[in-house]
Amino acid sequence: MRIDELDTPAVLVDLDLVEANLRRWQAYCDEHGIANRPHIKTHKLPQLARMQVEAGAVGVTCQKLGEVEAMLDGGIRDILLPYNILGARKLERLRALHRRARLSVAADSEVSIRGLSEAMAGEPEPLTVMVECDTGLHRCGVQTPQEALALAQLIDRLPGLLFAGLMTYPTSLPETPAFFDETRALCARSGLAVSRTTGGGTPMMWRAHEAHGIDEHRVGTYIYNDRMTVRAGVATFDDCALSVLATVVSKPTAHWCVLDGGSKTFAMDTYGLDGHGYLPAYPEARLTKLSEEHGVLETDGLERTPQLGERLRVIPNHVCVISNLHNQVYALRGDEILEVWPIQSRGAVQ
Amino acid sequence: MRIDELDTPAVLVDLDLVEANLRRWQAYCDEHGIANRPHIKTHKLPQLARMQVEAGAVGVTCQKLGEVEAMLDGGIRDILLPYNILGARKLERLRALHRRARLSVAADSEVSIRGLSEAMAGEPEPLTVMVECDTGLHRCGVQTPQEALALAQLIDRLPGLLFAGLMTYPTSLPETPAFFDETRALCARSGLAVSRTTGGGTPMMWRAHEAHGIDEHRVGTYIYNDRMTVRAGVATFDDCALSVLATVVSKPTAHWCVLDGGSKTFAMDTYGLDGHGYLPAYPEARLTKLSEEHGVLETDGLERTPQLGERLRVIPNHVCVISNLHNQVYALRGDEILEVWPIQSRGAVQ
Repeated sequence: MRIDELDTPAVLVDLDLVEANLRRWQAYCDEHGIANRPHIKTHKLPQLARMQVEAGAVGVTCQKLGEVEAMLDGGIRDILLPYNILGARKLERLRALHRRARLSVAADSEVSIRGLSEAMAGEPEPLTVMVECDTGLHRCGVQTPQEALALAQLIDRLPGLLFAGLMTYPTSLPETPAFFDETRALCARSGLAVSRTTGGGTPMMWRAHEAHGIDEHRVGTYIYNDRMTVRAGVATFDDCALSVLATVVSKPTAHWCVLDGGSKTFAMDTYGLDGHGYLPAYPEARLTKLSEEHGVLETDGLERTPQLGERLRVIPNHVCVISNLHNQVYALRGDEILEVWPIQSRGAVQ
Repeated sequence: MRIDELDTPAVLVDLDLVEANLRRWQAYCDEHGIANRPHIKTHKLPQLARMQVEAGAVGVTCQKLGEVEAMLDGGIRDILLPYNILGARKLERLRALHRRARLSVAADSEVSIRGLSEAMAGEPEPLTVMVECDTGLHRCGVQTPQEALALAQLIDRLPGLLFAGLMTYPTSLPETPAFFDETRALCARSGLAVSRTTGGGTPMMWRAHEAHGIDEHRVGTYIYNDRMTVRAGVATFDDCALSVLATVVSKPTAHWCVLDGGSKTFAMDTYGLDGHGYLPAYPEARLTKLSEEHGVLETDGLERTPQLGERLRVIPNHVCVISNLHNQVYALRGDEILEVWPIQSRGAVQ
């Protein structure tokens, strides 16, 4: 099947660009001795997770149990879940997954850690737990190295758990290495080894080697790239492997036309960007207004404007939410669709 | 099953409130002789569409062919699709659906209308087509009554099609009645009857009777309500039938805590509202920052703050996109879950 035969809107994934993106980042990680543990929330596809591992990733990162389940079913065995898992039902699912995988989780409170221990106490293998540290984002994570030490000691003491190290998101310079160094020193004085440290974030990915003392880096968006990574200066539009194919369904005036996708296709995330996507064929056109199933493309001042029925590729602001909106992606090389991949853990919010 | 047994995040739909919302709007429509044709994009559930029709709706509105397919499969027979359907694959699907339902569509260009005619020319029953008019939104729709007349004449002339009337979104006062009146007069002079007119929009729903000469009103959000309809003054938080149940998974400081849902649970749509949801149990808490799977709830200045592990209901900004993010809703009365409904046409962007 070829692109022209696809109904729209359709999510296209260019495998040549995916492979180039994977290779470039893996080469950088190899050069600097950084463990690469990509975040699959960006694509939610076991097919691409396997490509990442085959390219040299040590394993993957998932954000929800549903994603872990999909990746395990897809043959991935080493998974970090940097998320506080709370509540009886989730802990039961976690225990089942722990039996099937090399799983590690993160936690930032005594409540979380005690819950993990109660769930894991009877298991033959302990669950690997990292302490989540807030090194600047002000989301989850302990606020001080002293608190990190206290939780590390708790993990070390409680049955069913193995203290592994420290986790943060995103890595920031110089805050994260400073926080981790101080925690490492405190742990050492208490006889606890910090055997693993993990940071992440796409905007600073090519500076990950400057973050001394952080073994592992987690990036998600790098596999596809989008307007955000281009703005961050870590990729160009030529590196954008995912685009949404849309059709011009209305052209009521010379000033704008309307695409057959809106907030349910492109999502409303702007992150301070102007508009909701970039159109390589019309770089000056502005996708300014999304309703649920319509996208208004302003074409004022353009020499050439799209025609009614014309099919256009749109590079979205943020690819990670695109993978959560669509039922499948079309994997292609050139204009040839090679495979249709259902997005396994789309909507896996639990 | 009871609410406390649900894993989170989970979408809860309170059937008592749904029924009250349906009754109130239907009573208004009946009182004013307005045909009620609710938009199912809000819920995407045949179960609720059937409740709407049983309560007195003349049929439903869908925005995409995938939604029409789900509603037809769910037993709904009278469907308006106010969307330009373009391209061979979509027209083929439309023809198949036309054979199964009392289907009407809208179009705003000669290209669209000629495509519809070519697809329908051999059918025993003509397809009912309405002309979409732009009465202020500047999205789709012809710009003048003269253009509307020209398209009405084209529909009337081409094989396979039946001209029915005029469609717009949203109804605005006094622009829409003025546009429709002028078009109706032009059509009459050309011997064409405008036998059906349809407008819509939730913010002006209780003023629909002021829009003289518009037979039918389409509203979507009214079945659930949300922060947007409350802000528009057409509902109160007590009328909000849909909420998202979330758990506090992190509480790193006294200033904020973190819910287990982010942009993949609540969507990024703000529509000028402050934050991403309203929490009835903590009306002053602000859900300010969403990443994909985390929501930061600012609790600064609150007398009482949520506890780690506490489960909270969140009324979202815009319910229609919630139905597109989640795999299922939990239909309840009181604290009792009566049914789990998979969201049939979630992701039906084509």
